[in-house]
Amino acid sequence: MPRTSVYEIDVHFGDCDPAGIVFFPNFSRWMDAASHHFFWSCGLPPWHAMTDLPHSVGAPMLEIHTRFVKSVTYGETIAIHTHIGEWRNKVFIQHHRVVRGDDLICEGQETRALCVKDPETGRLKAIPIPEFIRAACS
Amino acid sequence: MPRTSVYEIDVHFGDCDPAGIVFFPNFSRWMDAASHHFFWSCGLPPWHAMTDLPHSVGAPMLEIHTRFVKSVTYGETIAIHTHIGEWRNKVFIQHHRVVRGDDLICEGQETRALCVKDPETGRLKAIPIPEFIRAACS
Amino acid sequence: MPRTSVYEIDVHFGDCDPAGIVFFPNFSRWMDAASHHFFWSCGLPPWHAMTDLPHSVGAPMLEIHTRFVKSVTYGETIAIHTHIGEWRNKVFIQHHRVVRGDDLICEGQETRALCVKDPETGRLKAIPIPEFIRAACS
Amino acid sequence: MPRTSVYEIDVHFGDCDPAGIVFFPNFSRWMDAASHHFFWSCGLPPWHAMTDLPHSVGAPMLEIHTRFVKSVTYGETIAIHTHIGEWRNKVFIQHHRVVRGDDLICEGQETRALCVKDPETGRLKAIPIPEFIRAACS
Repeated sequence: MPRTSVYEIDVHFGDCDPAGIVFFPNFSRWMDAASHHFFWSCGLPPWHAMTDLPHSVGAPMLEIHTRFVKSVTYGETIAIHTHIGEWRNKVFIQHHRVVRGDDLICEGQETRALCVKDPETGRLKAIPIPEFIRAACS
Repeated sequence: MPRTSVYEIDVHFGDCDPAGIVFFPNFSRWMDAASHHFFWSCGLPPWHAMTDLPHSVGAPMLEIHTRFVKSVTYGETIAIHTHIGEWRNKVFIQHHRVVRGDDLICEGQETRALCVKDPETGRLKAIPIPEFIRAACS
Repeated sequence: MPRTSVYEIDVHFGDCDPAGIVFFPNFSRWMDAASHHFFWSCGLPPWHAMTDLPHSVGAPMLEIHTRFVKSVTYGETIAIHTHIGEWRNKVFIQHHRVVRGDDLICEGQETRALCVKDPETGRLKAIPIPEFIRAACS
Repeated sequence: MPRTSVYEIDVHFGDCDPAGIVFFPNFSRWMDAASHHFFWSCGLPPWHAMTDLPHSVGAPMLEIHTRFVKSVTYGETIAIHTHIGEWRNKVFIQHHRVVRGDDLICEGQETRALCVKDPETGRLKAIPIPEFIRAACS
């Protein structure tokens, strides 16, 4: 069983659309927050403060795939269960399972590349994932 | 070649994250806008004003799949090219191709179910897609 | 000392702009969440479920006034201290004080009108604030 | 009559809340976009590309004050009329008038400080507004 973090979100009025349910891009926003929370819960500093990885900007998204099962409305609390499904050289896949109590709300898969910002050109560049990051997350 | 709409978006400062590029959930937000724009460009009224489809709430999302290719920053304009890839009974699949000039920025696929709100229970219910909607979009 | 609620917010990467600090409209979003939370913390049901106030849609905004003092970035937690500054006939003024530990981040004042949706016309209409709401909040 | 820019916004489904009208923080978001658009329309480069103002990060917000008059829903287009109401030494006040045709929707006032990022400390610092910026905007 891989290391898993749980991040809770209170659903707000302003997160919902005229149909009265969460506007779906908010789930991507919350999964991104859960992604950051996962690494912090593994004892790693925020990406921008990761002194062992100079010029780190974090892990921009290459691909997302989300399946929506049930709707949620405001006043409800959801929990996002997050783990790393796969490590590749410069890329990792994060899985998020969003639940409300026992109900599955949606589940998503994010493919991300670890990137640094070249201090001279200002461009982002993917780099091999350092061993200390993999170790912290397992 | 299926009917295709083009919807332009100006990328704003507030759409971008600390890495200086568009925060990815905004692409889902803009694809949703492009989805609505597609149906309007086919001559259909907004979902909530569709008198031929009483109690319509539109087409909630079942699944999204997006692949990100290049990043975008503020001050740039992108265009979303949208068409229907497939019609099923109660479900349709919409394709969005986001470009900046000749550059492909990202492309996404949305699976949506056409829904009405039951006036008595207030619950959403998927319904078969009426012929007049398919006809307008082809 | 009026009744005051405290609502905590984790600041996320995606809440921040290219300057690396919270994009200011998010404070309005969080103050709105704190406004809802205030009434729940007073023991009132969510506006849409308030059976003692049929057709309630809550309290749309008439005016906001916010003063920003310090910036906040992601990975930080802020707390919003909320109270009612004034009750008028159909209108109330809510005060929000946003802090990070002992630091004042920003403070805002919201003027809101309590509204119901006319079931026949669908239009919003301001109504006198019922005594049971004032009583719950004092 | 001061120089005024006009910026159009299509209101999307996802900009609206369960009451079916624009969730008010979006107006702050759009006024920020109109603020940037104003300076571009005066012939100035985006803040981050303003080579005549090294390390510019733009003009963070000190204070906002917005009065809401009418509501707007999706499928509608609004226009934001923006001008500078006052220049102080390091601060300026921008006025935004949001209309839908002849209807006033809301109006807002933003107080902003022109800032640069100190390349050594990374901290933001307000600076006197250069004459070339005032000249371009008048």
